[in-house]
Amino acid sequence: MPVSEDLDTPFLAVDPTALERNLAAGAARAASRGLAWRPHAKTHKCVEIARRQLAHGAVGLTLATVAEAEVFADAGFDDLFLAYPVWAGGPRADRLRALASRVRLRIGVDSVEGATALAAALRGAPAEVLVEVDSGHHRTGVAPPEAGAVAAACTGLDVVGVFTFPGHSYSPSPGGRGAAADDEAEALSDAAASLAAIGIEPRVRSGGSSPTEPLPPGPATYPATETRPGVSVFGDAQQVELGAAGFDDVALVAVATVVSVRDGHAVLDAGSKTLGADRPPWTSGFGRLLDHPHATIVALSEHHATVAFGSAHVPPVGSRVRVVPNHVCAAANLASSLVVLDGDRVVDRWAVAARGANT
Amino acid sequence: MPVSEDLDTPFLAVDPTALERNLAAGAARAASRGLAWRPHAKTHKCVEIARRQLAHGAVGLTLATVAEAEVFADAGFDDLFLAYPVWAGGPRADRLRALASRVRLRIGVDSVEGATALAAALRGAPAEVLVEVDSGHHRTGVAPPEAGAVAAACTGLDVVGVFTFPGHSYSPSPGGRGAAADDEAEALSDAAASLAAIGIEPRVRSGGSSPTEPLPPGPATYPATETRPGVSVFGDAQQVELGAAGFDDVALVAVATVVSVRDGHAVLDAGSKTLGADRPPWTSGFGRLLDHPHATIVALSEHHATVAFGSAHVPPVGSRVRVVPNHVCAAANLASSLVVLDGDRVVDRWAVAARGANT
Repeated sequence: MPVSEDLDTPFLAVDPTALERNLAAGAARAASRGLAWRPHAKTHKCVEIARRQLAHGAVGLTLATVAEAEVFADAGFDDLFLAYPVWAGGPRADRLRALASRVRLRIGVDSVEGATALAAALRGAPAEVLVEVDSGHHRTGVAPPEAGAVAAACTGLDVVGVFTFPGHSYSPSPGGRGAAADDEAEALSDAAASLAAIGIEPRVRSGGSSPTEPLPPGPATYPATETRPGVSVFGDAQQVELGAAGFDDVALVAVATVVSVRDGHAVLDAGSKTLGADRPPWTSGFGRLLDHPHATIVALSEHHATVAFGSAHVPPVGSRVRVVPNHVCAAANLASSLVVLDGDRVVDRWAVAARGANT
Repeated sequence: MPVSEDLDTPFLAVDPTALERNLAAGAARAASRGLAWRPHAKTHKCVEIARRQLAHGAVGLTLATVAEAEVFADAGFDDLFLAYPVWAGGPRADRLRALASRVRLRIGVDSVEGATALAAALRGAPAEVLVEVDSGHHRTGVAPPEAGAVAAACTGLDVVGVFTFPGHSYSPSPGGRGAAADDEAEALSDAAASLAAIGIEPRVRSGGSSPTEPLPPGPATYPATETRPGVSVFGDAQQVELGAAGFDDVALVAVATVVSVRDGHAVLDAGSKTLGADRPPWTSGFGRLLDHPHATIVALSEHHATVAFGSAHVPPVGSRVRVVPNHVCAAANLASSLVVLDGDRVVDRWAVAARGANT
């Protein structure tokens, strides 16, 4: 159990061997489906990991916010997609225009108001626009047949295609991931047809999520051209419990110390301020223990996780364990850096450069 | 609706008038019960707010980690209580000794192993030790009658009392908060008696939580001497829904922009990376909207909150709203600074100095 006793807990540790394997597998999956691979950098927020993604063949990065895109643009990344409807008002208007002037920038829209504000902000700066459609997640995005109407309202903008996020793939029901993948294919196809019907060529059709990414693509008149997985670079407890990854795929853990023990339970010094508090009803608990796969994290407070070991041996006070966060994107965003551990040896430390870059 | 259009969303805004009112009320409640007031700085992690707490009569600060205590010690605070069982192994051993040498430091223990490691780490440095007991929250702490046994194992340490955290006060059931307050009083009393029985004077008896703090103290042979509320400096949606605070008491909000609208719903640009993902089953959703008290945050992803407005008017794309996080400690830890807004005017910006100080 490599846990680097030279560092105080809690800390986040990256396994570079598992990371490299995940990068190669992600690139190979995209290539085998003929998709451009544009991984979501919100998961890791690390320049060093994004560089490895490009070295493995990523065409560019997906980002969540203008602030994230600014961090990666500063680090030399020049092909960035803000895959959400971005509100281009306030100071962000000038920031978007400046960003569009120095990188190849793609931006999502899903409303006439949003498109109008974006056109006013860009003032002709050369960004490309994709219309977001809802494939069943019911967050942002219009119904696929309405994509053309939004595109038609994009006066002064260069609409190049459509995108969706099939977030309902985070479903524990048997077949749930497959159904979401089918929904995604259908939504992209319908949305693309809606653009084509008004004379806009839907040359970019972007989809993907970590739970659907390993699945074969569904049938579609206009198949996807691009995939944007995030979590699969690291894996996490949600992906393991969804069946989309195995414990062997987990490339990031929180190393924690047992600080208290009683009656089949241990309390660790890693809580929601280290792991994140994500806990969908279908998960077994607030994360998993890599070396104790049958243990359950039954409670989580800011600085502590309470682990039930059932009838198994409870690790004693002072021992270290490796925790797999439920949602690794949340965990990485809570750390200032990730410790790269080769076995038990610290070989590097990567800054979470875009940590907290929410605007 | 003061939302400072000069700043890009999302950001955390502090209302200095409400903050000042909460500080005065917290100090007055402690004084009226004859309790030393030692607020928990993990909630705000801000030197500026801790200074105001001391100005209002706080005897010192409660901290969650050695790293937090180091930040506040560096800022000149000299009376600090680490109110958890601290594992004093690894590099932390020397950090604890250094800290104990420059401030008045109190440290929690709840096991023989923990006490032994702490004594080895301190090597005679003048820290005070409090035994943690479990009053019903079932996280850390021994059963109150066992406090004496732990204290007896604290060879070479200066045991000055007992403490508990009645975290089961986060209960939506009628009378739940009151029952937790009674449990706390009983646990402190029993634990103090257990120390006294082996000849250790339990002169410090520390308790308190934001939900129980406003309640009258229960009967006890050894009443509490100190209270350690955290959240009540700001208030949050959990406290409002528990009935421990009102919306008028809320002193910190996340300002967010509506980025997408459909069918009675708005999607905001503030998600779990701004608000935190805390969502106990008894809460109405993932937070509340200060200006739309009947709206429900039905879904939360990393960068978005989905708000259901029912039959009420949905604010349009581009408008701003104020979100009350479910758990304000989680939200503050996600920001690098808090914007102090007097009405709509930015009057200050306070660094979240101990952000991410988890070790």
